[in-house]
Amino acid sequence: MTRRAIIQPVIMSGGVGTRLWPMSRAARPKQFLPLVTSRSLFQETVARFSGDADVDFLPPVIIAGAVHEALIRTQLAEIGIAAAAIIIEPMARNTAAVAAVAAAWTSANGADALTLLAPADHHIADGAGFRAAVARGAAAASKGAIVTFGIGPTEAHTGYGYIEAGAAIAPGVAEVAAFREKPDAETAARYLKGGRHFWNAGIFLYSPDAMSGELDIHAPTIRSEATAALQGARKDGAVLKLDASRFALCPSDSIDYAVMEKTKRAAVVGPVEAGWSDIGSWTAISPAADDQRIISVDCKRTIIRTDGPTIAAIGVEDLIIVATGDAVLVVPRPRAQEVKIIVDHLKAAKREELL
Amino acid sequence: MTRRAIIQPVIMSGGVGTRLWPMSRAARPKQFLPLVTSRSLFQETVARFSGDADVDFLPPVIIAGAVHEALIRTQLAEIGIAAAAIIIEPMARNTAAVAAVAAAWTSANGADALTLLAPADHHIADGAGFRAAVARGAAAASKGAIVTFGIGPTEAHTGYGYIEAGAAIAPGVAEVAAFREKPDAETAARYLKGGRHFWNAGIFLYSPDAMSGELDIHAPTIRSEATAALQGARKDGAVLKLDASRFALCPSDSIDYAVMEKTKRAAVVGPVEAGWSDIGSWTAISPAADDQRIISVDCKRTIIRTDGPTIAAIGVEDLIIVATGDAVLVVPRPRAQEVKIIVDHLKAAKREELL
Repeated sequence: MTRRAIIQPVIMSGGVGTRLWPMSRAARPKQFLPLVTSRSLFQETVARFSGDADVDFLPPVIIAGAVHEALIRTQLAEIGIAAAAIIIEPMARNTAAVAAVAAAWTSANGADALTLLAPADHHIADGAGFRAAVARGAAAASKGAIVTFGIGPTEAHTGYGYIEAGAAIAPGVAEVAAFREKPDAETAARYLKGGRHFWNAGIFLYSPDAMSGELDIHAPTIRSEATAALQGARKDGAVLKLDASRFALCPSDSIDYAVMEKTKRAAVVGPVEAGWSDIGSWTAISPAADDQRIISVDCKRTIIRTDGPTIAAIGVEDLIIVATGDAVLVVPRPRAQEVKIIVDHLKAAKREELL
Repeated sequence: MTRRAIIQPVIMSGGVGTRLWPMSRAARPKQFLPLVTSRSLFQETVARFSGDADVDFLPPVIIAGAVHEALIRTQLAEIGIAAAAIIIEPMARNTAAVAAVAAAWTSANGADALTLLAPADHHIADGAGFRAAVARGAAAASKGAIVTFGIGPTEAHTGYGYIEAGAAIAPGVAEVAAFREKPDAETAARYLKGGRHFWNAGIFLYSPDAMSGELDIHAPTIRSEATAALQGARKDGAVLKLDASRFALCPSDSIDYAVMEKTKRAAVVGPVEAGWSDIGSWTAISPAADDQRIISVDCKRTIIRTDGPTIAAIGVEDLIIVATGDAVLVVPRPRAQEVKIIVDHLKAAKREELL
């Protein structure tokens, strides 16, 4: 029997969530909103990777932009969880740089831990189920694999990248045969039927040495500058502000492109069946139960959400209606992805107060 | 040639306008909102019946509830028109009592004027055209007719009462053959085709003596108690508060039922083609031009109005979207009349702040 794995959760909280406008705003993007439960997606994510499990979770590390530091402190305090560190990115440099920082931090502080790199803005209904998947991947990661989590597809989705599983490594863990870009509808249908293709959840489990080694091979500048940015970080209590002059030198690239599609070490735990959703648009949101501010008469398949104004709807179908104190969105469900158009319009019109 | 008629406009401002919720509220019902132009319907109505015309308009009398007195003063001041009187109804007693008060006031103050009784919450695009219709009716009213204004129907509307024109009295003026209740669709289509049936706009022109005489015959209690309520009114500058103990004794009835359907004196000016609308629901409202707060992408036949929040709509059709700071309405155009359901719901739930 292997010893219990020690896991260092590193929560990536730098997303912008424009497709959940008008609730998701620059100052409070979607991960900080209570969209699915009474806690924010960030709070749920932090809580998911803590406490009792088949692995030992260290206190989490949060990586985010400076504008959200106060919000992060508040939301952590609300759920009674103290971060090991809040690492502030002086600018956005995409996920490869974050993965490098996460590896370097874990290596320096993590007592032989594996790094679990996870976005703060996903919903996972079955936390225990996902933690079991993490435990399943830990053995492979301990042996040097860079482990991805492949979500069992529930529809022929054309908006996600897919992971094609190869030879089995262990029960429920396989080598990655290939990473597949967002497929067309026909290909997605084939993936769904075949059972060897999983949605790429963008969650990674790796030993710091394995990740650093692969970055050295495939993205050496990212590895060196991200590590230097962490080593030169200004420390203020639990807050570490990355050295901006070094971090700025990291090429902006995703960990998928920079490492995962090139490395021989990629493995996948899957299919993971834990009620995962990236909450990519308002269609992923259930109607708020028992909200006195919503008066819905004779509506069908309609998503209504408010954080203030009363919303009264009569006889509408397949519609999304979202209201905040200063903005209202109305869009048919099939066009939920197009909310980004509105945000682009507001940017062009310099309507900063609504962004 | 007859001498120029002197007209005493009496503006009925007691409506509630629930079908224009959420903008129309108890404290500021639809007549006080700038729904069609930059001035409120009330302001447009007052201005319509003043100034140069083929008749001489006396300064207007306003009849309204006490809660709107301040709003009326403010809105009159904004357009620079002084009322001859603001008559406060201590309770609502429908239009017959108002017609009686208006007759009594004109008789006591109006120097042989005719009373023009008009609701404050209608829109008339062609003010000069309607004033010409008033001038046309003045001769008949001077001779003792109680003159109604019959709007030339532009569709087979089943939501209005109709006036059936009888024998001609003068060019464009006829006896009333009958008042017709809201017709079914087939009957409305026949009315539209026949050209002898006009929409009853609920606007009346009469000499005080003629109206008082007919009230004496058909509704003597309304006549006596309304007159007594005015005679016993408490005067405060231009404000007259009707004596509540007497006004309360008026049976609550409409002038149509109490007098018009019974009197032999009814006449109709019609068809009046002056762009009349009772702004009965949001479908009567044109989209606000050039409102920076409205972002409409790929929408068709959609009415969007806001008095504060930005509204962003993508790809919706035949929809009404209205937002205020505390409430949002979304309803398909064909169901615009059902907005009243929402108001009823709010009343039942005692959501006074939204009424």
